[in-house]
Amino acid sequence: MTENRIFNFNAGPSALPLTVLKEIQDSFLNFKGSGMSITEISHRSALFDEVINDTVARTRRLLNIDDKYHVLFIQGGASLQFAMIPMNFLAEGATADYVNTGTWSTKAIKEAKLLNKTVNVVASSEDKNFSYIPQNIKFSKDAAYVHITSNNTIKGTQWHEFPDTGGVPIVSDMSSDIFSRPLQMDRFGMIYAGAQKNMGPAGVCMVILRDDMLKRSEEFLQSETKSLPNMLRYNTYSSQNSMYNTPNCFGIYTIQLVLKWLEEEVGGLEKMEARNLEKGNMLYDFIDGSNFYRATAEKKSRSLMNVTFRLPSEEMEKEFISQATKNGMGGLKGHRSVGGCRASIYNATTVEAVEALIKFMKSFAMGK
Amino acid sequence: MTENRIFNFNAGPSALPLTVLKEIQDSFLNFKGSGMSITEISHRSALFDEVINDTVARTRRLLNIDDKYHVLFIQGGASLQFAMIPMNFLAEGATADYVNTGTWSTKAIKEAKLLNKTVNVVASSEDKNFSYIPQNIKFSKDAAYVHITSNNTIKGTQWHEFPDTGGVPIVSDMSSDIFSRPLQMDRFGMIYAGAQKNMGPAGVCMVILRDDMLKRSEEFLQSETKSLPNMLRYNTYSSQNSMYNTPNCFGIYTIQLVLKWLEEEVGGLEKMEARNLEKGNMLYDFIDGSNFYRATAEKKSRSLMNVTFRLPSEEMEKEFISQATKNGMGGLKGHRSVGGCRASIYNATTVEAVEALIKFMKSFAMGK
Repeated sequence: MTENRIFNFNAGPSALPLTVLKEIQDSFLNFKGSGMSITEISHRSALFDEVINDTVARTRRLLNIDDKYHVLFIQGGASLQFAMIPMNFLAEGATADYVNTGTWSTKAIKEAKLLNKTVNVVASSEDKNFSYIPQNIKFSKDAAYVHITSNNTIKGTQWHEFPDTGGVPIVSDMSSDIFSRPLQMDRFGMIYAGAQKNMGPAGVCMVILRDDMLKRSEEFLQSETKSLPNMLRYNTYSSQNSMYNTPNCFGIYTIQLVLKWLEEEVGGLEKMEARNLEKGNMLYDFIDGSNFYRATAEKKSRSLMNVTFRLPSEEMEKEFISQATKNGMGGLKGHRSVGGCRASIYNATTVEAVEALIKFMKSFAMGK
Repeated sequence: MTENRIFNFNAGPSALPLTVLKEIQDSFLNFKGSGMSITEISHRSALFDEVINDTVARTRRLLNIDDKYHVLFIQGGASLQFAMIPMNFLAEGATADYVNTGTWSTKAIKEAKLLNKTVNVVASSEDKNFSYIPQNIKFSKDAAYVHITSNNTIKGTQWHEFPDTGGVPIVSDMSSDIFSRPLQMDRFGMIYAGAQKNMGPAGVCMVILRDDMLKRSEEFLQSETKSLPNMLRYNTYSSQNSMYNTPNCFGIYTIQLVLKWLEEEVGGLEKMEARNLEKGNMLYDFIDGSNFYRATAEKKSRSLMNVTFRLPSEEMEKEFISQATKNGMGGLKGHRSVGGCRASIYNATTVEAVEALIKFMKSFAMGK
């Protein structure tokens, strides 16, 4: 690769498209002829308005949504959303359904409970160590929303079809697979995603909120939780184009460039999905055909973003990761809570990187 | 200037040291030989540990504090701190004193009141349009803390001596003058600062919290507000080196480089203060000696960071700002809430920039 860059399989923060990084680098001392860095321009300037508005417009085009959906940029990552969602949507007496598919779902559930909100965990795959996505779930009819985690980075599972919730809006944490495929957005009342996996640097969370959800939150906040801080209300962001206070300008700018790359170089989400399928299938097919490596997620629930696998022993896994590093491949260690190996192959990971990984995996297995 | 850069007098986000920007640019595709961008490395890596730990160590050295002070990095800017402070320190029945010196103090007071907390506004300079810092304030003996805003970007005032609060810890918003001078830190229970004025890009807020304040918050949270979200508790950050979730890695890295510049190029906060005094005095002396420009803040309360001034008419102010822009000087427009002109001359603004500004101001006045 150019510039002595490695093949980066980090789970997040993770690889960004090289063209995006190069554009940031090239313009870093002088953004659009302003004579200032993107980190030095005012968020109240026409220059930054253009950045944030273009990012919103590209988001709408890519996801095929109109202004019925508000595109917001909030700090604090998905972890702050775990609290903001029940704070904004769960009035006294209201309940929500949650599906537990791993660490991040568990955290979202915990946070809602901490706030003394009533949540029903309507399905969980904890019985099999979160290695699958639950099917045929019975949702509550009167739930305010159904919360799911669309892709589970740690266990390597992903929702390939979204559940029929009987009209109850789905709220989905999409931190690790947003923009990886087209979405039927009318199923979702809200999607949210920390930028640092599939669209930018850490420190900014994109929230896409349907108008009826925003209105519901506003009514609820009027009537009951008058005491919710401004920074924790969605309408603080929607009413001021995410600039009630200074947003993470650099983060939003990077997202803009990633979305530009998605539209203009990749060619949209259908093409992105095809490329992700190509990479994922290539790697899973190789693992399935090997009697050395073993994929850990159930076949139907496998993630196209995070491929989790084991070797015959923990000793060999250590050696595998160490040799991979020496061969210019980083981030292959599984999450500290589960061990094993994991190759995160988000949008920005190239086919070339996956091919190189497979080649290395082959030669490593042969040597054993 | 090099690279067609302008003299940047923005109030925030604002100028960063050129050497810092160049280092970011140079290493942007390959951070410390990792083969990854700083935006692509894991926050759970040794590489990033080194970044955050060095940033904390430099903060401690520059402010001459030991580990009795916790240095934390929180997202959401000072605006989220306006809520977190009363949420963490004001138990049922407890009260806090606030001094109102302008827009940001007013927002801090509003946010505490919104949370149904009891706050005493013990002094205000609203009677004279916030053009001065109140003196001889009578503080409450039993206040949990005294909140002040050390520098007021909009009105151009600054606390030059901190008040005697009779032992009550001061909590200060220092977003616009942190690291601009040495501080007698034992007066402060907490200082906090959005990075985007004096130390980095927008999207990360530095919080320096004294151990007794942290303990007080922990006791309070144990006993009463069990329902405070994890992301809004200071101990979530202090117990996990600000990495309970993914922090704003790029923001923290930039702060690290700015603090390195402060230590190694400027030579510490005494020298920084001397340089800031030189720049500020030069500009104020010129304005005072002119009968065209008029400084708006009272002499004793003038800010060394934001120099606010007026011209004989709004018409001339418009022309001044427009001609300044053409002459390579940006950000001289006063805040939209007050009008007029403002030159923000934070740490990174060079003596050369102030000299160029004065030269331009002279020639503009002569032409009238």
